[in-house]
Amino acid sequence: MTDATAHLDALTRVIPDFPEPGILFRDLTPVFADAAALASIADALVAPFAGAYDVVAGVEARGFALAAASAARSGHGLLLVRKAGKLPGATLTESYALEYGEAALQVHVDQLPAGTRVLLVDDVLATGGTLAASHRLIERAGWALAGTAVVLELDGLGGRERLAPHEVLALQRA
Amino acid sequence: MTDATAHLDALTRVIPDFPEPGILFRDLTPVFADAAALASIADALVAPFAGAYDVVAGVEARGFALAAASAARSGHGLLLVRKAGKLPGATLTESYALEYGEAALQVHVDQLPAGTRVLLVDDVLATGGTLAASHRLIERAGWALAGTAVVLELDGLGGRERLAPHEVLALQRA
Repeated sequence: MTDATAHLDALTRVIPDFPEPGILFRDLTPVFADAAALASIADALVAPFAGAYDVVAGVEARGFALAAASAARSGHGLLLVRKAGKLPGATLTESYALEYGEAALQVHVDQLPAGTRVLLVDDVLATGGTLAASHRLIERAGWALAGTAVVLELDGLGGRERLAPHEVLALQRA
Repeated sequence: MTDATAHLDALTRVIPDFPEPGILFRDLTPVFADAAALASIADALVAPFAGAYDVVAGVEARGFALAAASAARSGHGLLLVRKAGKLPGATLTESYALEYGEAALQVHVDQLPAGTRVLLVDDVLATGGTLAASHRLIERAGWALAGTAVVLELDGLGGRERLAPHEVLALQRA
C-alpha cells in the first residue's frame, strides 16, 4: 500500500444518505485538511506521468484543489476547467448529463499553445460525465491529453468504460 | 517589485464588460496556467505568515486553486470553505449579500481542532462579502484567523473596510 492510499484509508469519511437517501458519500475533506495526506496524494496523482505532461487541469470545484496542489508541487501550471458562464473571453463549451437535465464545462480557447500536454486530475470518477466532457474540451482546443488521474474510482457506474480508450489512474476504488 | 507582482503585471488579462457592461474584469487564468507565476504567487501569499498558521483555507471555487497551491508548496493542509449544500455532515453556515439576493458559505464544524490557526487565501478582494463570511465561519468554528491574503484588491468597493479590524495582504491593487 502506498503512502497516499494509507492516508486515504485513514482519513476518508464515509457518510450515508448524502446527497440523497441510499448514496454512500465519501468525504475527502479530512484528507485535504491533513498536510501530509494532501502532499502525498498530490504527488501520487502525477508521479506516473512525470516528464509526459506540461500542465495540470482541474475540473470545478474540488478538482481545482487537487490539480493546484499537484501542479504546485510538481512545478507545473494549472488549467481551470470551469462551469459554464464563469470564464470571460473566448471559450469552448461541452455539455454533460446530470441526473435531471444537463450542465456544461468550459475552457479558454487560447489558454495554452497547441500541442500542450494536459494531465487531467479530479477527486472522484463516478459516471465519468465531467471527465469525458473535459477530454473533449482538451481535444477541441488542440491540446494533447497526457493522462487522467483521480483519487477515488466508484465501481459500477460505468465511468472507466465511458472514458475508454483513455486510461484512468485511480489511487483507490470503492 | 516582487517576482509575484511582475508575473501578475505580465500575465493578467483585462477584459472589458464582463460579467456585465461597465465592469473591467481581471482574468487571472493566464497567471494560473504559467508554472513560474503560479509558484511565485502561491509563495508570496503565505510567506509573510510563515510560522503563524497551521492550515490554508480557500473559498469556492477559484480560492480552492490558490489556497491548494499555497498549502501544497508550504507543507500545510487545506480547508475548503464551500458554497452551501456541498458539504456532507455537520456544518456551520454564514450568508453574504449578492447584487440581487444572497448566498451562503459553509465549513465542516469538526474539520480542525479548536484553536487551529487558519490563513485565508483568495484571488480577489472586491466588496469583501465572501471573505467576511469566511471570517465569521472560522471564528464560530473555534479556530483562529491567522491572516487573509489575496492576489488582487479592487479599490473603491469597501472590501478592506468591511474586513477591519482584520488586515488583508494584497499582492496587487487595481
